Amino acid sequence: MTSKKVDGNSALKVNKGIEQPPVINPYMSNFYKKNRVRQLTLEDYLNGILSSDLTVLSQAITLVESSRPEHREVAREIVQRCQEVAGESMRIGITGVPGAGKSTFIEAFGRLFTESGHKLAVLAIDPSSEKSKGSILGDKTRMEKLSADKNAFIRPSPSGGSLGGVARKTRESIVLCEAAGYDVIFIETVGVGQSETAVHSMSDFFLLLMLSGAGDELQGIKRGIMEMSDLIAITKADGNNIDKAFLAKALYSNALHLFPPTGSGWVPSALTSSAITGSGLEEIKQKIFEYFDLTRKNGFYYKKREEQARFWMYETINEEIKNRFYANHTIRRRLEEYEKLVTTGRMGSFAAASELLKLYNEKWK
Amino acid sequence: MTSKKVDGNSALKVNKGIEQPPVINPYMSNFYKKNRVRQLTLEDYLNGILSSDLTVLSQAITLVESSRPEHREVAREIVQRCQEVAGESMRIGITGVPGAGKSTFIEAFGRLFTESGHKLAVLAIDPSSEKSKGSILGDKTRMEKLSADKNAFIRPSPSGGSLGGVARKTRESIVLCEAAGYDVIFIETVGVGQSETAVHSMSDFFLLLMLSGAGDELQGIKRGIMEMSDLIAITKADGNNIDKAFLAKALYSNALHLFPPTGSGWVPSALTSSAITGSGLEEIKQKIFEYFDLTRKNGFYYKKREEQARFWMYETINEEIKNRFYANHTIRRRLEEYEKLVTTGRMGSFAAASELLKLYNEKWK
Repeated sequence: MTSKKVDGNSALKVNKGIEQPPVINPYMSNFYKKNRVRQLTLEDYLNGILSSDLTVLSQAITLVESSRPEHREVAREIVQRCQEVAGESMRIGITGVPGAGKSTFIEAFGRLFTESGHKLAVLAIDPSSEKSKGSILGDKTRMEKLSADKNAFIRPSPSGGSLGGVARKTRESIVLCEAAGYDVIFIETVGVGQSETAVHSMSDFFLLLMLSGAGDELQGIKRGIMEMSDLIAITKADGNNIDKAFLAKALYSNALHLFPPTGSGWVPSALTSSAITGSGLEEIKQKIFEYFDLTRKNGFYYKKREEQARFWMYETINEEIKNRFYANHTIRRRLEEYEKLVTTGRMGSFAAASELLKLYNEKWK
Repeated sequence: MTSKKVDGNSALKVNKGIEQPPVINPYMSNFYKKNRVRQLTLEDYLNGILSSDLTVLSQAITLVESSRPEHREVAREIVQRCQEVAGESMRIGITGVPGAGKSTFIEAFGRLFTESGHKLAVLAIDPSSEKSKGSILGDKTRMEKLSADKNAFIRPSPSGGSLGGVARKTRESIVLCEAAGYDVIFIETVGVGQSETAVHSMSDFFLLLMLSGAGDELQGIKRGIMEMSDLIAITKADGNNIDKAFLAKALYSNALHLFPPTGSGWVPSALTSSAITGSGLEEIKQKIFEYFDLTRKNGFYYKKREEQARFWMYETINEEIKNRFYANHTIRRRLEEYEKLVTTGRMGSFAAASELLKLYNEKWK
């Protein structure tokens, strides 16, 4: 599964003279902190990533997450070179209703992979996250065992900005992790805004965590998520909850049969699980392996990756030209006024759009 | 419900001197055909529409559908003026799996509205339609009774172009029909591409027609459509099919309960119907009226319309700036090459996007 990665050095034409990139303590003085990105060369980064140096990998991801143009330039080069060696991984998107115990699930479920020799990276997309509010510590605290596991790498969501920006950063981080030898990638999301759709569009497999007692908890998930799922896991199937969990499993199984078939030939199903007793986790893992066997054999895995790559190219372009339009001075000044005309029915949507486009056009000339 | 429309003339400050706009036979000589759009003035169009002159309404819609800049100019003005008088209508989106008998359903169901004094316009969104292939005749033939009904106006999908273009034309036609006094609008779609989403985004209520025998026929509908629906009608519940239809109704009812609640406070359900025996049609109509009662009382109807108006303004802008980008000469020349680099994994999606944007930018300067 990771065969392409092993020969990474030759593919990258890395300068063999530098065996070990300098490890920088991120908590050293401000002077060094400010300049630490500059201290590593491109080859240092690539060497570090390919030799699975966690500090260098983290620093490279920080570079990918930076919005400073000089960082973006280096980051783009690193991603490009890593892209060439990143092999066949399993990218698993995970979302869940609030209260489903996502972190606890990932903590227990992730160890099934690391214990059987896989290297697991846990990334996230949470457009609402703010690093300054300590979500790094938060994530690592909630996944204590996994973050101490030498086969696991946990990275919180990139912070701030639009969903498009956050998604771009996470997708590029996936490439770096894969080049560093991580063959299983969890991409978790808290389900804010359109983040599930973003996670879905960069995952091979999409896992939805639900609680038993169908009904109330559905408040927490957005319409359409269930149909995107390749597997529904009912969590917390332990103690007094077991019967309810099995009932929920039956309900969701029936519901899934009513959905149109997926393009993969895969039939989504529902399972129960408990992060406390560990029951059901192995079955979920088995299901996931079955999925990858099936879709690698029938080619869907590769086709979907191609489509995702194409999707993200167009998505990035479309986001960027939109950003340029709405950042335009004239547009910013007049947009609200036109929006008001339109929502109060005093002007048609198309007429307003056409006038705004004219204003933008005039700015061009 | 139509109170705002009655006083349309004064709101429009229409020239009262012209009582009846000249009715033009669309099959007259080529000379007249080419120039017939010019023969009516703006006031002629508005007068004609407000007095429910079907010929003028049709001609105005033709103008809305035209892509010639001089037509667009007049069309925009007509839509703008009609916008000011269009009242509270019921916009009902209708889609269904292939074989569900959409035309037959609309033919029977529509007459429930026209017979009780409503004026019904049936519009469509079908990005694949080509008028030259005779879909006008097709639609009218399939809805024989309805097309002869003086309270019904059937207009096939605007032809050709992108979904965005087709959707724009249909949405503007809705406004013209409402100004002409049509208070119930069916917007049907064959479900090609993203057309259901487009119909959903211009409807107050979304009706999904399904066949009994859940499973095979689901091939025909796209994932996510079921969750958009306010009501599922199982069609062809007659003859030997009745038991199967009732079973399907129960299955879909259960499935709908598992979906997250809608923002409207409305609980979607499933019903059976037959266009042949007429059974179930009255119940569906009742359900729809209940929906409008509820959402007009709780304000969701107005909030959704506002959101839709806002959505279409942004959608139009975003479509147009995208079109401009992809129509750019340099981009058209290089796009395929970058797409190939990306889908074969030789270049990252974001790097490719960024290079293409640079190429576009350079063209600007």
